[in-house]
Amino acid sequence: SRSINLAVVPGDGIGQEVVAQGLKVLRSVLPQDVKLETKEYDLGAQRWHRTGETLPDAELESLKGHDAILLGAIGDPSVPSGVLERGLLLKLRFAFDHYVNLRPSKLFPNTATPLAGRPDIDFVVVREGTEGPYTGNGGSLRTGTPAEVATEVSVNTAYGVERVVRDAYERANARPRKKLTLVHKNNVLVYAGHMWKNIFDKVGEEYPEVTTDYLHVDAATIFFVTQPERFDVIVTDNLFGDILTDLAAAVTGGIGLAASGNINPTGEFPSMFEPVHGSAPDIAGQGKADPTATILSVALLLRHLGYEAEAVRIEETVAADLAERDASAPRTTDEIGDALAVRVAS
Amino acid sequence: SRSINLAVVPGDGIGQEVVAQGLKVLRSVLPQDVKLETKEYDLGAQRWHRTGETLPDAELESLKGHDAILLGAIGDPSVPSGVLERGLLLKLRFAFDHYVNLRPSKLFPNTATPLAGRPDIDFVVVREGTEGPYTGNGGSLRTGTPAEVATEVSVNTAYGVERVVRDAYERANARPRKKLTLVHKNNVLVYAGHMWKNIFDKVGEEYPEVTTDYLHVDAATIFFVTQPERFDVIVTDNLFGDILTDLAAAVTGGIGLAASGNINPTGEFPSMFEPVHGSAPDIAGQGKADPTATILSVALLLRHLGYEAEAVRIEETVAADLAERDASAPRTTDEIGDALAVRVAS
Ligand SMILES: CC(C)[C@H](C(=O)O)[C@@H](O)C(=O)O
Ligand SMILES: CC(C)[C@H](C(=O)O)[C@@H](O)C(=O)O
Repeated sequence: SRSINLAVVPGDGIGQEVVAQGLKVLRSVLPQDVKLETKEYDLGAQRWHRTGETLPDAELESLKGHDAILLGAIGDPSVPSGVLERGLLLKLRFAFDHYVNLRPSKLFPNTATPLAGRPDIDFVVVREGTEGPYTGNGGSLRTGTPAEVATEVSVNTAYGVERVVRDAYERANARPRKKLTLVHKNNVLVYAGHMWKNIFDKVGEEYPEVTTDYLHVDAATIFFVTQPERFDVIVTDNLFGDILTDLAAAVTGGIGLAASGNINPTGEFPSMFEPVHGSAPDIAGQGKADPTATILSVALLLRHLGYEAEAVRIEETVAADLAERDASAPRTTDEIGDALAVRVAS
Repeated sequence: SRSINLAVVPGDGIGQEVVAQGLKVLRSVLPQDVKLETKEYDLGAQRWHRTGETLPDAELESLKGHDAILLGAIGDPSVPSGVLERGLLLKLRFAFDHYVNLRPSKLFPNTATPLAGRPDIDFVVVREGTEGPYTGNGGSLRTGTPAEVATEVSVNTAYGVERVVRDAYERANARPRKKLTLVHKNNVLVYAGHMWKNIFDKVGEEYPEVTTDYLHVDAATIFFVTQPERFDVIVTDNLFGDILTDLAAAVTGGIGLAASGNINPTGEFPSMFEPVHGSAPDIAGQGKADPTATILSVALLLRHLGYEAEAVRIEETVAADLAERDASAPRTTDEIGDALAVRVAS
């Protein structure tokens, strides 16, 4: 009989609330014969305040044994900026070699968008997840003095770029439009940018059916708001991907709907699924958070584990629910989770 | 009697066309007693193809003697990406210590915006211009092989950050709303990000009337499309400023209206004014380019040289012209320039 051994990291702020709804929907959608085991990990701001730990080795080791990780949100204003992000969230992405950070963007019917004319938006960003300016390379000299020098080093390897670019070609090739756009800034960041472009062109020779395109990151932001329908699959580096996917979320109904998967395609390590949004401490504990992004992340999780039919059922259910949502009658976090859980079951 | 000794670098693509209109309006707006001398510099793609030179020392030296520089656009697909950008445009910004890259964003009445509901947009981005990931530090090892490693180093100094942050506080303090937002990514780029934030907070103590705010760059892109009216003055690093100002241009009527000044506030070197848009080779030579961004850059140039009344006259004229523009009857580059030149004179 089948089973899923899931690690759950609710994290901070609204993380708890949205993860609870994600699990509710997961339990509801799974066929009877699939045994779901979950183990919750107490990681995040409270743990750090209590013990000074962000992600102890023993817990990292234990997390490794799961089939996948469901994460809520990490970060709290009471913790110095960077401590939890670098010590927990990015540590997980790097330790588990999550080199494909998958972020689909779709403008569902009846959802708010700041864009006039409601363009047709349905693209996916394949963000590199283990390199670039996120490596933590760099340092600061004479810190806090008028003579301080601070550096941040973007580290990019052919090994790391080739594998994520190939993944993006595979995804583009499997979609009807078969279009892949590389976003970088190779007119300024010439070392990393030219390597990305050369590898992008070379791997592209193996995918003759995929139409390709290159955009500088600054120009890409323009098209995100003036012509988002031009995009199908986008591949880009870790930092540009971070920036572009928040913008993508904003134009497709908001950060409350944006799902993501931190994927280790080889299966050597568990992949991790999380909403793109943060911990939103200002609304935490009030039942105001929209759990939809987490629930859509559960769909990505299921797809990754081979439960395609269940993933599609969640996505279709969310679309149907969104189509009926009444902005003048907002529901609580729980109510949205309940409605979706009931609906995916039937 | 007064005089302006102006260097003109039309550059590539539509650069020639838009700069011609900028000069036309400049001549028209200047009082009779101001003597305008211009010297054109042949720099850009054609020069590079002919001679292999991007910016020879002699020309850099000669440019130094001018009161200001008016630049059209640099870059052409026939030149490898980065050659002209690094060898000419960025070389000028760095050599002339243009540490304040000033980019105002205003949504004029009757201009197109992709945003529904036409929010009130009127902010200015103070982009650092001489540091960050733009320094050209970095390199590539085993280039072109599967073992390649490419790095890009963002270099940030307290010296460089303090001066641009101070400039931004001065600008914020001089505006009615007195609000300054720092944009960085200090939860990931902890070395540079914390230095920026610490300096931002410290300098802020000298400006008690300025309200301050911090946003991560990814979150800032969301607010650019959902709540752009929240911004007054933004200060940010070179790369984030590049990305945000294209997005800002897109939401405020397009890149055809976005002006910029590369300013050396000490006056040691000439400042340089240019539209934010690129050389747009696809429409070059067809009279289709909108010269308004260049003309608004001329206003920034005049303001920098102390001709405040003339700067305001250009800006008001552009606003009036835009209010009357009929999108169904587009004018040529020349016609727009002529109309504005006539109007600023009267
Ligand atoms: C919280 C932060 C470290 C993270 C990132 O920058 O990747 C977040 O913005 C995201 O996009 O998942
Ligand atoms: C052409 C390029 C080097 C330049 C930049 O990145 O600064 C441009 O995008 C700009 O914003 O002026």
